[in-house]
Amino acid sequence: MRVNGMIYIRNASQVVTVAGASDTPKTGDDMGQLHVIENGGVVLEGETIRFVGSDKEAQHYVDSKAADGDEVTVIDASGKLVTPGLVDPHTHVVFAGSREFELDLRLKGATYMDILNAGGGILYSTARTREASEAQLVEETRKRLDRFLAHGVTTVEAKSGYGLRLEDELKQLRAARVLNEEHPVDLVSTFMGAHAVPPEYKGDPSAFVRLVTEEMIPAVARERLAEYCDVFCEEGVFTPEQSRSILEAGKKWGLKPKIHADEIVPYGGAELAAEIGAVSAEHLLRASDEGIRAMAEAGVIAVLLPGTAFFLMTKPANARAMIAAGVPVALSTDRNPGSCPTESLPFIMNLACLSMRMTPAEVLTACTINAAHAIGRADRIGSIEAGKQADIVLFDAPNYMYLQYHYAVNLVDTVIKKGRPVIVNGKRVDG
Amino acid sequence: MRVNGMIYIRNASQVVTVAGASDTPKTGDDMGQLHVIENGGVVLEGETIRFVGSDKEAQHYVDSKAADGDEVTVIDASGKLVTPGLVDPHTHVVFAGSREFELDLRLKGATYMDILNAGGGILYSTARTREASEAQLVEETRKRLDRFLAHGVTTVEAKSGYGLRLEDELKQLRAARVLNEEHPVDLVSTFMGAHAVPPEYKGDPSAFVRLVTEEMIPAVARERLAEYCDVFCEEGVFTPEQSRSILEAGKKWGLKPKIHADEIVPYGGAELAAEIGAVSAEHLLRASDEGIRAMAEAGVIAVLLPGTAFFLMTKPANARAMIAAGVPVALSTDRNPGSCPTESLPFIMNLACLSMRMTPAEVLTACTINAAHAIGRADRIGSIEAGKQADIVLFDAPNYMYLQYHYAVNLVDTVIKKGRPVIVNGKRVDG
Ligand SMILES: [Zn+2]
Ligand SMILES: [Zn+2]
Repeated sequence: MRVNGMIYIRNASQVVTVAGASDTPKTGDDMGQLHVIENGGVVLEGETIRFVGSDKEAQHYVDSKAADGDEVTVIDASGKLVTPGLVDPHTHVVFAGSREFELDLRLKGATYMDILNAGGGILYSTARTREASEAQLVEETRKRLDRFLAHGVTTVEAKSGYGLRLEDELKQLRAARVLNEEHPVDLVSTFMGAHAVPPEYKGDPSAFVRLVTEEMIPAVARERLAEYCDVFCEEGVFTPEQSRSILEAGKKWGLKPKIHADEIVPYGGAELAAEIGAVSAEHLLRASDEGIRAMAEAGVIAVLLPGTAFFLMTKPANARAMIAAGVPVALSTDRNPGSCPTESLPFIMNLACLSMRMTPAEVLTACTINAAHAIGRADRIGSIEAGKQADIVLFDAPNYMYLQYHYAVNLVDTVIKKGRPVIVNGKRVDG
Repeated sequence: MRVNGMIYIRNASQVVTVAGASDTPKTGDDMGQLHVIENGGVVLEGETIRFVGSDKEAQHYVDSKAADGDEVTVIDASGKLVTPGLVDPHTHVVFAGSREFELDLRLKGATYMDILNAGGGILYSTARTREASEAQLVEETRKRLDRFLAHGVTTVEAKSGYGLRLEDELKQLRAARVLNEEHPVDLVSTFMGAHAVPPEYKGDPSAFVRLVTEEMIPAVARERLAEYCDVFCEEGVFTPEQSRSILEAGKKWGLKPKIHADEIVPYGGAELAAEIGAVSAEHLLRASDEGIRAMAEAGVIAVLLPGTAFFLMTKPANARAMIAAGVPVALSTDRNPGSCPTESLPFIMNLACLSMRMTPAEVLTACTINAAHAIGRADRIGSIEAGKQADIVLFDAPNYMYLQYHYAVNLVDTVIKKGRPVIVNGKRVDG
């Protein structure tokens, strides 16, 4: 669907702008303060939001700005909810293969080691990803991005970390770059060579850390393939010291730090995130109270992944404690082939309410403006404000609470990406 | 999409027939025994399944049966999973209004009584349903049935129980009858006037029980509006004695008994179900060990509703204990406006794995042949066998395990109802 001139989204049951007073991520009670306009209207032009307000004001804006003969595309939002395009700030979406057989084994009591021995686990995904060509990675990932878009997600972060050797890490990041150009969903790339110790370095993880810091990071930076650097800081994977050296090397090369922290055991990951000035720390199921306090003070965003806890049948992070402590919270699918095989960020929002007791308002903040902050895009996306990029979703819902009520079904009606309608009445209309 | 002649579903990655050796519901280890055909084919003609087997055999069947010039519609199922149409044996899908505001209150600590006092709860739905015309009920429910169908559900049970007075109970059941005729999804009706004590009988529940047994049941039976009779047997709602008298009255009028049992406290509901020869007992979160044993002996089907436990943030039923005891287990959404506002039976299957540790094979049995038994339709639906009704789903999944792996997204590709394709490539193609 091509549009010349303005798009006028009229008469929405609710427009939730998620606009805030400051340009830092929302924290505390502010996370639950949405800017809600009943009977709202939004006007877009080109790739940009021009106006948001009451429908009456929006109509007036259109009348005053549209010159005679200008084409104005009207999208009727009666009975619908309008929100910013959803933002997923943590995915491992670029990979090959799938691992459905592990679930059956896990349900029958297999341990992580049993699964590894049965040929499963992350090294299975590494093997499939190494085998795949860049074109095949693009092909498999495109389908996943289509599903993200169908669920109202207009921007995703995408990590490498299934290659675990230079050429295959670069291949993953190049696939992400290709998709960023050709797919409506925008991708923000993170280099995560330190996702696991590959089999060929099993006896010598420090040698692998040197490979990451001395060869991979410089190569990624030179090719401008990533904006962020991430590391899996966890007992039995990378120690806090190794993680620090990797993230410091990344910083030297211009890659901003993120960290997978305290997922399985308390390991000082939250503390390290604060100390090193990470943009975000992820998972945090076992983060210590001091770690949470340190994150709040340093302004590190907690990216929580309740879908992973759900799929692994374990307790999710303590979101309420983090919000109470003043940590800005974002939410994400963690889309990956092992521990969270879903693209439904709206379902992750349902889960954040039901398993972590975040409120419907907080989860919307966490999946829009706070998520945008977690990937350095809050100046362009994450809220509906004049001047921002026109990434907009219409839901078949009368209000934002309804998103968390009519759960586990896809309520997306219309998705507009950079001012272009790409889903209308639930159907793809581009390309 | 109209079809004359045969439909040949060719070259499926897997066909799961769920066919069994006997015509009773599956129990114990048998629940995990699916009949799986790799590279399968299915042939339909009119409303009926004519052949299922390997794709080679199916091709041969088509070649041998199709006369010259006969139209054969070929549906390519390469890379796809073929299953029986899913069956939801427990819904309250016919109602008016929605109750999204209760979730926010619940998350902020409101009790059931707080919500009732704030104008919420079941009596809110009763008020909206009483206000609604039959046409409005049909309209609102049609959208829900559309969502069921989109998720691969081709038959649902539908209970009354938001009218709570004669004319409004009849109105709900008549709306279900209208929809059964006009919508692709088949509805099987259950009278559940004893869903709650309505406000006008607050001081005198026995008088309401008399109204149910002496006026409502005969009226429902005379108008042939239901096949089953159900009652909410729960502390503070209807006692086991009242429940028994209601179900006995139903039996006298030809309505087969079902019972909402032991949802909130152990209350002897499972035992009563066995004693009275109920077709099924539902919820069973607090069913006693003896109750479970009695159900196994009497062959009462346990209809488990893990979505309700999930949405109410409580522990689900002990499915493993029931399967171990030999109780046949079925699964359902419990679609209703208060405690389970979803039509995604596939997500209920995900939840049954992840929250109740049922296996991918068991949940498929529970949502097909066992669910069909729970609504007296196992002779016609619930498995892919020659001679049965052609209710078939194609999923964008290479095998049945994948359904429980790639979770919370809708993998339905094609739905065939009574031999007629109604969803193709995820899009409605009828009407
Ligand atoms: Zn991750
Ligand atoms: Zn029920």
